[in-house]
Amino acid sequence: MTTYVAPTRDMLFAMNDLAGLAEIAALPGNDEVTPDLVEAILDEAAKFASEVLAPINAQGDRQGCQCKDGEVTTADGFKAAYSKFIESGWNAMPASPDFGGQGLPSLVSTAVLEMWKASNMAFSLCQMLTLGAVAAIAHHGREQDKQLYLPKMVSGEWTGTMNLTESQAGSDLSAVRSKAQPEGDHYRISGTKIFITWGEHDMAENIIHMVLARLPDAPEGTKGISLFVVPKFLVNADGSLGQRNDLICASIEHKMGIHGSPTAVMAFGENEGAIGYLVGEANRGLACMFTMMNHARLNVGLEGVAISERAYQQALGYARERVQSSPIGSPGGAPVAIIRHPDVRRMLMNMKARIEAMRALAYFAAAQMDKAHSHPDPDERRMRQTITDLLTPVVKGWCTENAIDITSTGIQVHGGVGFIEETGACQHMRDARITTIYEGTTGIQANDLIGRKVARDKGAAVKLLLGEMNATLAALDAAGDKELRVIGESLQGGTLALEQATEWLLANYDRNPASAAAGAVPYLKLCGTVIGGWLMARAALVATTRLSTADADFHRAKVVTARFYAEHVLPEAQAYCQAIVNGASSVLALEESLF
Amino acid sequence: MTTYVAPTRDMLFAMNDLAGLAEIAALPGNDEVTPDLVEAILDEAAKFASEVLAPINAQGDRQGCQCKDGEVTTADGFKAAYSKFIESGWNAMPASPDFGGQGLPSLVSTAVLEMWKASNMAFSLCQMLTLGAVAAIAHHGREQDKQLYLPKMVSGEWTGTMNLTESQAGSDLSAVRSKAQPEGDHYRISGTKIFITWGEHDMAENIIHMVLARLPDAPEGTKGISLFVVPKFLVNADGSLGQRNDLICASIEHKMGIHGSPTAVMAFGENEGAIGYLVGEANRGLACMFTMMNHARLNVGLEGVAISERAYQQALGYARERVQSSPIGSPGGAPVAIIRHPDVRRMLMNMKARIEAMRALAYFAAAQMDKAHSHPDPDERRMRQTITDLLTPVVKGWCTENAIDITSTGIQVHGGVGFIEETGACQHMRDARITTIYEGTTGIQANDLIGRKVARDKGAAVKLLLGEMNATLAALDAAGDKELRVIGESLQGGTLALEQATEWLLANYDRNPASAAAGAVPYLKLCGTVIGGWLMARAALVATTRLSTADADFHRAKVVTARFYAEHVLPEAQAYCQAIVNGASSVLALEESLF
Repeated sequence: MTTYVAPTRDMLFAMNDLAGLAEIAALPGNDEVTPDLVEAILDEAAKFASEVLAPINAQGDRQGCQCKDGEVTTADGFKAAYSKFIESGWNAMPASPDFGGQGLPSLVSTAVLEMWKASNMAFSLCQMLTLGAVAAIAHHGREQDKQLYLPKMVSGEWTGTMNLTESQAGSDLSAVRSKAQPEGDHYRISGTKIFITWGEHDMAENIIHMVLARLPDAPEGTKGISLFVVPKFLVNADGSLGQRNDLICASIEHKMGIHGSPTAVMAFGENEGAIGYLVGEANRGLACMFTMMNHARLNVGLEGVAISERAYQQALGYARERVQSSPIGSPGGAPVAIIRHPDVRRMLMNMKARIEAMRALAYFAAAQMDKAHSHPDPDERRMRQTITDLLTPVVKGWCTENAIDITSTGIQVHGGVGFIEETGACQHMRDARITTIYEGTTGIQANDLIGRKVARDKGAAVKLLLGEMNATLAALDAAGDKELRVIGESLQGGTLALEQATEWLLANYDRNPASAAAGAVPYLKLCGTVIGGWLMARAALVATTRLSTADADFHRAKVVTARFYAEHVLPEAQAYCQAIVNGASSVLALEESLF
Repeated sequence: MTTYVAPTRDMLFAMNDLAGLAEIAALPGNDEVTPDLVEAILDEAAKFASEVLAPINAQGDRQGCQCKDGEVTTADGFKAAYSKFIESGWNAMPASPDFGGQGLPSLVSTAVLEMWKASNMAFSLCQMLTLGAVAAIAHHGREQDKQLYLPKMVSGEWTGTMNLTESQAGSDLSAVRSKAQPEGDHYRISGTKIFITWGEHDMAENIIHMVLARLPDAPEGTKGISLFVVPKFLVNADGSLGQRNDLICASIEHKMGIHGSPTAVMAFGENEGAIGYLVGEANRGLACMFTMMNHARLNVGLEGVAISERAYQQALGYARERVQSSPIGSPGGAPVAIIRHPDVRRMLMNMKARIEAMRALAYFAAAQMDKAHSHPDPDERRMRQTITDLLTPVVKGWCTENAIDITSTGIQVHGGVGFIEETGACQHMRDARITTIYEGTTGIQANDLIGRKVARDKGAAVKLLLGEMNATLAALDAAGDKELRVIGESLQGGTLALEQATEWLLANYDRNPASAAAGAVPYLKLCGTVIGGWLMARAALVATTRLSTADADFHRAKVVTARFYAEHVLPEAQAYCQAIVNGASSVLALEESLF
C-alpha cells in the first residue's frame, strides 16, 4: 500500500514563482484569489487526496470494474469516495460559476487536479471527462440544454463522457460512421463507440454522453461530423429523470492499467435509436469537440506529472528504508539505506528533476491559458492564446513520454520487489502507459505542434518563447554565480538546438512535409526538454536569491535539482536536434516491404 | 494472439558477418559446425518456436501459475510443450557433450536461445536456470554429483534453479543468512529464499536447487557463503528418486509480467533440515555462483533482444494492416496503412535499428566467449576473455534497458488497441520490465563494468575495442561512399565520447569512487550505444559490397538501418558523456533530507 502526500511546497513555488500567480490573481474576475485562499484550497485538496483517494487506488487496480448485462460496478470504495468528492464541492471547483462552479483560475485548479491524478488516476478520469462535456455544452449547447444538464454535471451528480472513437476511426475521426437521424426536435443516434472512459458506472444516477455522429446528408470526412448530447436517462423538463435512452454498455476492456476506470464499448440505438440533441452547428461537431480536447490534452499532460510524482514518492520512501550493501569506497562497511548509493541517487534525482520541470511547464501553460481568457488587453490575450496553443501538445506529449520512463525508474529503484504487484510500483507504470496514447497519441500531438503551432505562424510563438529564454540567459550570466553559469551554458546549448531545429522545420515543412513529420516527435521532445530547462533555470535564479531565508532548504534543493537537469537532461536536446535536422531521410528511405 | 517468426536472415548475418562464425567453426572441437548444420538447426528451432512455444505465450500470461499446498501448476500447454522440448533435444543443445549436450558453440546456441526467449520468455527461463545449475555442478561439483544429476538435468528430465536472494539479501549477497549444518557426507540446509525462478512446477519429476548458505563457522560477509546442491527429491545411488527433501514452495509471487514462469518463495528445512551437498569449496560459494551468473547475464541481455524482436514483429504486423488517415501532404486522400505515416515509420525504424545493433552485440559477445573457451593460443584466449568480461554487463544492461523502451514503442504503434491486454503488446512490455532487474540490476551491471571491467585493467579492454573501432572508421572513410561517410562521422563522434568518458572514469575511479559510480549507468549505456553503432557500421560496410547480389534487398535494408542508427541513436552518446563528465556533483550534492 502506497501513500501520497501532495507536494504543495513545490506546487506553490511553480505557481508563485514560475507561472506568476500574482499576475493571474490580478486579472479581472479573480478578486478573491488571494494567497491565503490558494493555500487553503491546496491544503484541503491535499488532505482529500491522501485520505480518501489514495487509499483506494490499489484496490481499484486489483479489483477493476465488472460489467454485467450492461451495468458496470466499480471497485470497493469508489462509489463512496465519489459521493464525498462531489459533496465536498471538488467536482465543481474548476468549473464556471455560471453553472455552480467556483470559477477559479486554471492555474489553481491545475494544482488541485494534479493531486486527484496522483492519488488516484483512474478515479480522476471521471471528473476530467465530466468537465470536458460541461465545457462542450457550455460553449456550444442550446440554452435549454445548458439549463437542463450543466448544474447537475458541474456538481457531479451526473457525469459526462466523450464518445469519439469507433473501431475504424481512432486518430482519424473523419472515418466516424455513427448516424444521427432527425426526428422532430431531436435526433436518433446509432452506432458503436469504443474506448469510452467512464462510459458506464455505478457512481452517478445519470451519464451525459457527448457523441460524434453523421447526419443523413452530411458530407464525407471531417466536415460532416456533428456533436450530440445523448443522456443515459432522458431528462424531463423539470430536471427529473425520464425514460432510459436506447444506449448500453456492451462490454468493458481489459487494460494494462487504470483498471479502476471502466473503459466501455457503447452501443447506441440498437433498438429504436438513442435520442440525442445537436450541440453547436450541424457538421461542425469536430470543432466543438476540440473545445474539450485541448483542455483534456493539458489535463492528460498533467497526469504525466502526477503519476510521476506518485512513483517518485514511493521510490524515495523505499530508498530511504531499504538497507543494502556498504557504501561505495567502504567495502566491508555497514550496509546503508540505498539512497546513499550513487546510482540510486541518480535515479531519484532524474525523477525529481524531470518532475519539477514538467510541473513548471504544465502550470506555466495553465497561467498562459488564464491570461488568454481574462487579460484586459486583447493583444495580450491573443499572444497568450498563441503560447497556450503551442504548449498544449508539448505538455501532453512530453510530460506523458517522461512519465513512462519515470514510473519505470520507480520500479527500478525497488529492485526485485518493484516487479511484485503488491508493492504498487508496477501500477504507476501500467497506469502511465495510457497517457501517451489517449486524447491523441504523441505522434498526433507532434504533428499538431509542427503544423498548426509552429509552421502556420512561421515560428512566431516559438520565437516569442526563445526571446524570453534569451532574457533568462542574460540574467543567469549577469548573476555572476557559478551554479547559475553552469545552468546557463547548458540552457544556451538547448536554445541553440531549438532554434536550429525550428529553422530547419520552417524551411522544410511546406517543401517536404514527410521529412518534417519524420522529426515531429523528436521536435516535441526537444521543445519540452528546452522549455522545461528554461523554467528550471528561472527557478534556480529565484532560488539563488533565497539561500539565506527561513526557507533556504527548499531553495538549495531547487538549485541542485536545476543543475542536475542542466547536466543530465538538457544535453538530450542536441541528440533530438540532430535526429530532426539530419535524420529524416533514414526514417523514410526503407522500402515498406523491407521492414 | 500474436505470432513469431524467427528472424533467421538477420541472425545468420550477425553470426556470419559480424561475430565471425567461420572463425568459431575453425576452433578446435567445432569440426561439425558447418554452415549447413547451423542453418538446419536454426530452421528447426524457428519451427519449434513458432509452432510450439509462441502459441502458448499469451495463455501463460493470462492464466499464470497456481500454487496450492506447495504444488505449482503451470498454465495450459506448458507441460506438454516442455515434454516436446526435451524430447526434441532442445534442452540439451547448448550443454557440454560430456553429459549429453551437443556442445555447440555459444554463438550458435545464442541464436537458438533468442528464439525460445522471443517466442515464450516465461517458458524459456526454465531451461536457462537449468543450464545455469548444470554449469555450476559441472565446474565445481563433486564427481558423484556430476554423474548423479547432470545427465538428467542436461536432458531436461530434471530442472534446476538458483537460490540466492533472501529478503534482506538482494543485490548484497553478503547478507545471506540461510544455514548449512554439517551432518556426515551432507549438510542440513535451512532458510527462506525468495524470487526463485521456476522454483517449483509440474513440468519435471525432480528439481535440483542450487542454494547459497552459511556453514556454522563461516566468516561474515561474502567470504562465508557456500554453495549447495539440494534436490527436491533425494536421488538414490542408482539414479532413481528417493524421499522428498525438506523443502517446499511456500508461495508464488504476483508479478507484473512473465506470469507463465512461477517465481517461488522456497522454504528450506522447516522440519529436520533439507539435505544438501557442498559444491566447490566451503566459503567459496559466491565464486561458484558467478560461473552461472555471468552466463545468465548474457542470457538475460539476450532476452532484451528477443522480447524486443517479438514486440517489433507485432507492431510491424499491425502497422501494415491498420488503415487510418490519408498520407501526409495529401489531405483528403484515401486513408493508408499506418506504416506510411512518417512517425510510425520512425518508431518502427527505431525498434528495428536498436534490435539489430543489440543482436549484433549479443552475438559478438557470444563469439568472444567461444574464442576465450577454445582458441588454441592462450594469449588470444585471455584477450577474448577480457572482452567477454567487458561486454557481459553491457549486453545485460544495455539490451534490457532498450527492451523496455522498444516494447513500450510496440504498444505505442498500436495506439489505443495497444493498451488492451488481448492485443498482446502489453505482455511484451510487462515481460521485458523484469530484465533490467534480475541477475543484477542495471546499476549492479554498471558498477561491475566501471570497476572490474574498466578501472581494474586501466581501460585496456575498452581501448582494445576502440582500436578495432578506429580500424572500422578508416575503412568507412576509405570506402568513398556517401552513406558510409555519414555513418562514419556519427561513429567518430561516438568513439570520441567513449574515449573521453573512459579517460574521465580512469582519472576519477580511485580518487573519487562515488563520482565515478554516479556516472556508471550512463557509461554502460554509452558503451552499448557506441559498440552497437560500431557493429552497425561494420554491417553497413559488408552490406554495401552486396548491393548487386541476389540478396540485395536484405543488404540495402541493412545500410538504411545502420544510417538510421547513426543519425537517431548514436547522437545519444554525447549526452551520456556529458552526464558522466560534468554531472557527478549534481547527482551527489543534495542532502538526503532534501529529496
